[in-house]
Amino acid sequence: MGEFELISRYFSNSGARRQDAAIGVGDDGAVLQIRDGYDLVVTTDTMVAGTHFFPDDDPRALGHKLVTVNVSDLAAMGAEPAWLSLALTLPAVDEDWLAAFSAGLHETAEYYNCQLVGGDTTRGPMSLTMIAKGIVPRGKALTRSGAKVGDYVYVTGTLGDAALGLKLCQGLHEVSKKHQTHILQRFHYPSARVALGQALRNIASSAMDLSDGLYSDIQHIMKRSDVGASIDVSRLPLSQAVKDSCDQTTAMQLALSGGEDYELLFTVPEAKRGSLDVLLSPYGTPVSCIGRITGVAGKLELKHGEQPFSYQPTGFVHFV
Amino acid sequence: MGEFELISRYFSNSGARRQDAAIGVGDDGAVLQIRDGYDLVVTTDTMVAGTHFFPDDDPRALGHKLVTVNVSDLAAMGAEPAWLSLALTLPAVDEDWLAAFSAGLHETAEYYNCQLVGGDTTRGPMSLTMIAKGIVPRGKALTRSGAKVGDYVYVTGTLGDAALGLKLCQGLHEVSKKHQTHILQRFHYPSARVALGQALRNIASSAMDLSDGLYSDIQHIMKRSDVGASIDVSRLPLSQAVKDSCDQTTAMQLALSGGEDYELLFTVPEAKRGSLDVLLSPYGTPVSCIGRITGVAGKLELKHGEQPFSYQPTGFVHFV
Repeated sequence: MGEFELISRYFSNSGARRQDAAIGVGDDGAVLQIRDGYDLVVTTDTMVAGTHFFPDDDPRALGHKLVTVNVSDLAAMGAEPAWLSLALTLPAVDEDWLAAFSAGLHETAEYYNCQLVGGDTTRGPMSLTMIAKGIVPRGKALTRSGAKVGDYVYVTGTLGDAALGLKLCQGLHEVSKKHQTHILQRFHYPSARVALGQALRNIASSAMDLSDGLYSDIQHIMKRSDVGASIDVSRLPLSQAVKDSCDQTTAMQLALSGGEDYELLFTVPEAKRGSLDVLLSPYGTPVSCIGRITGVAGKLELKHGEQPFSYQPTGFVHFV
Repeated sequence: MGEFELISRYFSNSGARRQDAAIGVGDDGAVLQIRDGYDLVVTTDTMVAGTHFFPDDDPRALGHKLVTVNVSDLAAMGAEPAWLSLALTLPAVDEDWLAAFSAGLHETAEYYNCQLVGGDTTRGPMSLTMIAKGIVPRGKALTRSGAKVGDYVYVTGTLGDAALGLKLCQGLHEVSKKHQTHILQRFHYPSARVALGQALRNIASSAMDLSDGLYSDIQHIMKRSDVGASIDVSRLPLSQAVKDSCDQTTAMQLALSGGEDYELLFTVPEAKRGSLDVLLSPYGTPVSCIGRITGVAGKLELKHGEQPFSYQPTGFVHFV
């Protein structure tokens, strides 16, 4: 069996089966049926060994994360995830690695009802690129550009958990035994807020997912919507694990500049706040209001209750 | 200006503009409008430095080739190219390189009326992944799986030119001055057979593009269609440049096992051969009938006229 057949064995016949994938793996391209009246949403994310992960990271977790970060982008646009393509570059064929990576990929793809429909496999330094495709009713996609002055700013879940998980893995921060499982799960096996993203279609004025940290990410909404924002850091939702493991300064740093939480950040006009509360009850997703959109374009104001909050963002500017 | 802004300047506002790209670069994902009654076709191709090209290759040609190899896959499915995404991994930001690469990419994208609608840029060993998306009337996509016993096998253009161009660049083969421009053009600036691919929708029983060489590629049609094929190598279309530069054995090797020609390989039932001739006249694309589909599944028979032709495929089995 050649290397080609070996690799294709792990990717050609697994994951969810969808009737709208007329042709999947095995031809020059995939042929996909878009429901009439729907738009296509496409996202792309690359994870490079040495930049986004270590070559010896658990391959099952990598497969999971690759799917999740892409599906999270679809969730942030209010789309229904449907199909995935994988561009996989590997220095050599390691069957154990392939088995674990593809298992993580497929179980997560299946969870989100996505079918792997194609891609490319090449030899070179390890790099994982996924392309996720979803559908959204025509004109209903959530974007970064619709926030208006006076809108309320919300986030889902808790912030900073994944960043604490990374620090724990790097030996840079201690976490008590009882919180370790939760924190490592949040780092290695994040979730995408798919159901909530779709539910926000007629409620949120703008939305995006948190991949680089709130402080950095909210500036994309500010820029695309030509607005400013005022955030009350005392309202940032923190997990018990972060509260118990960090002093307040560290907790704020994790919540503001920690990446890879894959929670949703979104804005809601005053008139839709009631609909939001009604909407949320069946989802069980915790959502916190953390501030307002302001008219001072480009200015991000941080407060702690009524007091100004001084913050020097840590971390680095991503290459992208 | 940060690296992010620098890179985005080269990719965010150029290429063709399409009205059906509701949201392009700059959000969590692109939002694309598929015409009612059409299917989506998606292809993915990765080019890795050191594997598919040399890091010091002309970046403008790389940008051109990256678009062309993807659009060629769409052409082989009879699709109309529409949108491109780019996952770009670079070790560092080299503005001259970016300017030339993006120029090659955009001029080629514009030629095929494709809009760049998003992607991801990351730091790491140089690697270029493109995702091309096109549309095709529902159910009309050309595939590798429809060839039937008795169908005629065709190829467009001439075979082996790109492989001769590669040998010329590597200093492994001499080409007379008068043929060098043509041969290098075919290697560095290949074309995709987009118009012809669409025209074949109701005529060809199967189709694919030639990227790895005829001998290797036709086996994909044989496998997916569960048939065999008989090819008359005396009918393989050779350019004057290949004829003048190579002895017959070398010419056959180039035509059978040379890659990257991006011509179309397709099959046509007997009853559609008249339609094919009528169809071809306005296109000006040379097309050659090189053999028939046989019932001996998996067997590729080579002949030279009526004589058996013995051939040991050169080259290597691609990693993929």
